[in-house]
Amino acid sequence: MSAIQSKLGFGPEAARARGTSSTISVGIVGAAGYAGGELVRLLLSHPNVRLVGLHGRNRENQPIELSHPHLSASGLVIDQAMPEADAIFTALPHGVAAGMAAEIVAKGSALIDIGPDFRLHDPADYPRWYRLEHPAPELLAQAVYGLPELHREEMRAAAHRAITIVGMPGCYPTATILTLAPLARAGLIGDLAVDAESGVSGAGREVKQDLLFSEVNESVKAYGMFTHRHTAEMEQELQEQGARGPLASRDANPGVATVDFLPHLIPMTRGILASCHVRPTRPVTQADLDALYDEAYRDEPFVQVVSDAPATKHVLGSNLCRVWCRVDPRSDRILAIGAIDNLVKGAAGQAVQALNVLFGLPETTGLEQYPIAP
Amino acid sequence: MSAIQSKLGFGPEAARARGTSSTISVGIVGAAGYAGGELVRLLLSHPNVRLVGLHGRNRENQPIELSHPHLSASGLVIDQAMPEADAIFTALPHGVAAGMAAEIVAKGSALIDIGPDFRLHDPADYPRWYRLEHPAPELLAQAVYGLPELHREEMRAAAHRAITIVGMPGCYPTATILTLAPLARAGLIGDLAVDAESGVSGAGREVKQDLLFSEVNESVKAYGMFTHRHTAEMEQELQEQGARGPLASRDANPGVATVDFLPHLIPMTRGILASCHVRPTRPVTQADLDALYDEAYRDEPFVQVVSDAPATKHVLGSNLCRVWCRVDPRSDRILAIGAIDNLVKGAAGQAVQALNVLFGLPETTGLEQYPIAP
Amino acid sequence: MSAIQSKLGFGPEAARARGTSSTISVGIVGAAGYAGGELVRLLLSHPNVRLVGLHGRNRENQPIELSHPHLSASGLVIDQAMPEADAIFTALPHGVAAGMAAEIVAKGSALIDIGPDFRLHDPADYPRWYRLEHPAPELLAQAVYGLPELHREEMRAAAHRAITIVGMPGCYPTATILTLAPLARAGLIGDLAVDAESGVSGAGREVKQDLLFSEVNESVKAYGMFTHRHTAEMEQELQEQGARGPLASRDANPGVATVDFLPHLIPMTRGILASCHVRPTRPVTQADLDALYDEAYRDEPFVQVVSDAPATKHVLGSNLCRVWCRVDPRSDRILAIGAIDNLVKGAAGQAVQALNVLFGLPETTGLEQYPIAP
Amino acid sequence: MSAIQSKLGFGPEAARARGTSSTISVGIVGAAGYAGGELVRLLLSHPNVRLVGLHGRNRENQPIELSHPHLSASGLVIDQAMPEADAIFTALPHGVAAGMAAEIVAKGSALIDIGPDFRLHDPADYPRWYRLEHPAPELLAQAVYGLPELHREEMRAAAHRAITIVGMPGCYPTATILTLAPLARAGLIGDLAVDAESGVSGAGREVKQDLLFSEVNESVKAYGMFTHRHTAEMEQELQEQGARGPLASRDANPGVATVDFLPHLIPMTRGILASCHVRPTRPVTQADLDALYDEAYRDEPFVQVVSDAPATKHVLGSNLCRVWCRVDPRSDRILAIGAIDNLVKGAAGQAVQALNVLFGLPETTGLEQYPIAP
Repeated sequence: MSAIQSKLGFGPEAARARGTSSTISVGIVGAAGYAGGELVRLLLSHPNVRLVGLHGRNRENQPIELSHPHLSASGLVIDQAMPEADAIFTALPHGVAAGMAAEIVAKGSALIDIGPDFRLHDPADYPRWYRLEHPAPELLAQAVYGLPELHREEMRAAAHRAITIVGMPGCYPTATILTLAPLARAGLIGDLAVDAESGVSGAGREVKQDLLFSEVNESVKAYGMFTHRHTAEMEQELQEQGARGPLASRDANPGVATVDFLPHLIPMTRGILASCHVRPTRPVTQADLDALYDEAYRDEPFVQVVSDAPATKHVLGSNLCRVWCRVDPRSDRILAIGAIDNLVKGAAGQAVQALNVLFGLPETTGLEQYPIAP
Repeated sequence: MSAIQSKLGFGPEAARARGTSSTISVGIVGAAGYAGGELVRLLLSHPNVRLVGLHGRNRENQPIELSHPHLSASGLVIDQAMPEADAIFTALPHGVAAGMAAEIVAKGSALIDIGPDFRLHDPADYPRWYRLEHPAPELLAQAVYGLPELHREEMRAAAHRAITIVGMPGCYPTATILTLAPLARAGLIGDLAVDAESGVSGAGREVKQDLLFSEVNESVKAYGMFTHRHTAEMEQELQEQGARGPLASRDANPGVATVDFLPHLIPMTRGILASCHVRPTRPVTQADLDALYDEAYRDEPFVQVVSDAPATKHVLGSNLCRVWCRVDPRSDRILAIGAIDNLVKGAAGQAVQALNVLFGLPETTGLEQYPIAP
Repeated sequence: MSAIQSKLGFGPEAARARGTSSTISVGIVGAAGYAGGELVRLLLSHPNVRLVGLHGRNRENQPIELSHPHLSASGLVIDQAMPEADAIFTALPHGVAAGMAAEIVAKGSALIDIGPDFRLHDPADYPRWYRLEHPAPELLAQAVYGLPELHREEMRAAAHRAITIVGMPGCYPTATILTLAPLARAGLIGDLAVDAESGVSGAGREVKQDLLFSEVNESVKAYGMFTHRHTAEMEQELQEQGARGPLASRDANPGVATVDFLPHLIPMTRGILASCHVRPTRPVTQADLDALYDEAYRDEPFVQVVSDAPATKHVLGSNLCRVWCRVDPRSDRILAIGAIDNLVKGAAGQAVQALNVLFGLPETTGLEQYPIAP
Repeated sequence: MSAIQSKLGFGPEAARARGTSSTISVGIVGAAGYAGGELVRLLLSHPNVRLVGLHGRNRENQPIELSHPHLSASGLVIDQAMPEADAIFTALPHGVAAGMAAEIVAKGSALIDIGPDFRLHDPADYPRWYRLEHPAPELLAQAVYGLPELHREEMRAAAHRAITIVGMPGCYPTATILTLAPLARAGLIGDLAVDAESGVSGAGREVKQDLLFSEVNESVKAYGMFTHRHTAEMEQELQEQGARGPLASRDANPGVATVDFLPHLIPMTRGILASCHVRPTRPVTQADLDALYDEAYRDEPFVQVVSDAPATKHVLGSNLCRVWCRVDPRSDRILAIGAIDNLVKGAAGQAVQALNVLFGLPETTGLEQYPIAP
């Protein structure tokens, strides 16, 4: 399909043409997986990005359509060389990006890791949650947690340091933390249970029997009971929000010391819905809640505070996060629900958002896509 | 397809032949819906049942395949006449069965209502949860809640009364109550959040835009926040289990006074998974939990206490309920998960089980089907 | 959600700003259906379009999110007034657009009808296939069939006439005609069977029991046997391709006089795959076929001639059509397969492509989206 | 879950009790796959069968729920020993059963092979279609093709021979041959294109990227173009039906010399629909067709000739095959459509039917299940 590449006007030639005015050269390591493919899809439409290298294990000189048939029109090729670029995205199994990080930052590239290697601040959390001794704790100490809605200023500061490493949030934490941050900042989370459903793409592209169509279709199951690794991120960030709030304490929200998180696998490809059951630390009214969420998100381009229960179909294919929060007049409990596309706001899209933050671009650049429905 | 009916050896002729040794004549009112169709499917294989009448609104003299193409081989016909029989199953929108009940029981039929009209003991719960003034509170007072694992003896007693009415549990309550009953009996439920996923058939066969394939597919959403009608059943039954337990108090489980129940609609046809997050009233060990569940269910033919997280696919098409319960050593919270097929154990199958209880048959009669997978 | 509209930078204010340099004002009649929603989604990203009016039956002054929750960020409103604009798109049940057409073209608007009212040249085909006496045969005589790959010049010519009406192809015909046109032009179609699978959105958003999730999921069925209305378009266009080819005869392809077309409904939302079994009129080699397809499509931006069997997932969300064609060395039969997204290339996307043709824009304007996968 | 096994009354103890009156001991080789699991499910309900051994590669002494969680209540164990029994079912990759066959039949067991090793009469077809030199051509010569509706008498005769081997039909051939046999017997098939859709379970349980949920969901593709191995069976059997018909010639149906067969993978788990486009050798009326199908199938318990287009959901979980056949008055072409559950009538169910034929039982024994819907 080599003749196709330039027909749509967005193949490599178009990219090269565009490149003259582009300021950011970008490489992707781990381009053959689902998050990697989604990154390519988004970056091909980014007006300020030049894709200079795609790296995929065992894919030397393979046209991209062997990994991502839907991207054949790009004419791109995956190769084995580690790309050199202003920014490197890594989308790799845990432990791998941390092993490469020193080499990447030594070349002056900003490292945006979609995997989990730079998410947790405490190195001791890696053996605890990932059974992994972190291979580069000194780099971990320099990493910022790449949730722009919470850490925008830190990310901007990191961009000006000699070493720039952003650990992108996991898909479940993105949905959960955005849904709960206004409550956490207000110190309202007394007890918390988070129940979430994920599309199957969240499990990655690894070939396992559990992920076969015939096993997943027409079924739902819980998994990762008590041990899902994303729990650690939620605890870290929600505790920190408490410490940033008016109560200024990591213990402001007793319910987030040990987040009771339960993920489910359901028969769909994309999307995460996080339902958060909160027993508040003090009585609140709906007006209180509305004010908290309005203050938190009214200027955020990607967070929509909605009044109807969100569905993942409402955000599919977009970088949007929908958040809904209500207090139950009967029980005084709070229910907060968030929805994202796990591969966009939960992975590749948010990574592009982080790139925009680091390089001083408007945050929505390249991310203006509306959701696709039905 | 009229010639087909007797070929499989289980059409009306076979039924008539079989009928000579059968003791129970059965009619179904509301045979054209999903629960009604599932009842027909199950009863056609029941060795002690003679199907004497199917009733469906606006379906006078229609061959059953116009409503249920998969049952065409039965040769059955849906008509408008109200059947007379030893037992009448009603599978109708709320309020309708209650309106018919007096007529049915006056003829001496046992009434097994799959709808909600005889589930809640307190007549005041009907206006509260269903916006319906119960049309026959005097009959409601005679009804028993048809969850055999909890109310078997009451059901047997009801069978010998002049008026026999069984209000079958809803699909969510069946899964949730079976999952939590051992904890409730032990007074362990301090705080409770129940998050459940349901297949779309649980919403019935009514034609609504929200239930179109293109709207449901590749999406998940919560619904019925704070107001789902099945909440009332859960509260009633779990409080009662507390009152039956060693603490002998309806308040033994503070977490069930107002159950925090949240259902989700996911893209599958059948199945309910209920994930119950419990903050216990006192510390427990896994051995405690194992003992409670073993005691509760070791002799129950349809409840499987399992050690791997249950999936709805493990019970699809069967009357089985799988239950899993663990205490989290990190947080001391309890997580209990239950899985059923909403149309079998959650509706038609459990109704057949109730019939077996009422008529003194082994409870598994006609319900021996193994789940179907993949 | 009124505050959200301008956050993403593509709400009405952004549109208004953009509008200053836009040359085309556009209205949509029938904006609440699936094709209408997809049009809105695509046009919101079109750099030369100003959306000036959305019309939907019984939706007076409704925010668009009541019909299309995924588009809430646009801040658009559906109203009842018939829009006035340079171009009007109609996405309506058959017969309705034809009834409105005179009024629309009288105001000087170009009419781009996504429905079937202006597809068939012979007015007698409407009673035959649609049981409808065409209400405006004099306008029908002026309409062009809006498949740009086959009728680009006619469309351009129509743009300069006093009355501009484009009848957009149906979804099945788009896939089938693009897949077969090179063979038809060469007079190669001796015998033809077309078997196609469609996602459920192709049936529209009308609320019918047959389209409920529980009825469609985990099933496949054929429908419209011998009578599907799209058959007429296929016959018209494939015959015409024969007349345009070197054999210059409408009878050059005996297999297209009565196209043997069979559509299937399968459990997915979007996508059409058309598998065309051809008994050729004369022996051909693979090299012959490759040359025919290369000649036909090498300069077409939206048609990809591929060497691996196309899947609908490879084009989902994009305006691309993938085409594959092979001769079987064992039987000398030809197999040609085409894949599109029925709502994009099969409806809204192709309509935007037609708009671009009519208004002299590059054909890919606003249609550069890559497919979305997985 | 060991305590569960006997609760439902159909675990090993029940089987042992039942076994006293059972006449057939049965073993399964390849019990861990989808067809193997379905065999276990069906045989557990078969009143005349005693399951004496389950064999699965690398599954020594594994409880069955590790392979088939839905069958945990059976208490069965998969082991490594080759079972000895009256009948052995093999459900294995091609070539494996043929290698074991001599050993199995030497012990006097009847061999019922669900795989392809004994389907094709001509040993030369194995290298041609399977790239496999048949390891036991002398046994192949003794095998009968196990489609009872066509070969019942041969199967009965084989049961009385020293060596009894039945090669069970593939899933696509079962649907296609049953759909076309009446036409083939009448010598009506002048030209033929068979387009079929299959659920993903038809591809087996092997772990491949192509079969991951995220790859299959929301997509349809053709595969095996010109080369699908089931083509050979269709040609063999349809030619033979021609030779058995009144024209008594293998060439009576020119359209079946090289069957133009195209399978599609669609996003569902179970089911096959085969749409057969026939150009007849001579004019026929609908009355002719009705007579042919009535004659062929009026006494067949598992074949339903229907007047509405069949859907796979109408037969799911059952051993039924639905067949529909119409002549198009406009084109004089014939369209015939068949639907089965690929794992029941297309594999395990038909194998049980074959067992019933071999052992002189009523053919529906253990196969009376109605389809399950929705």
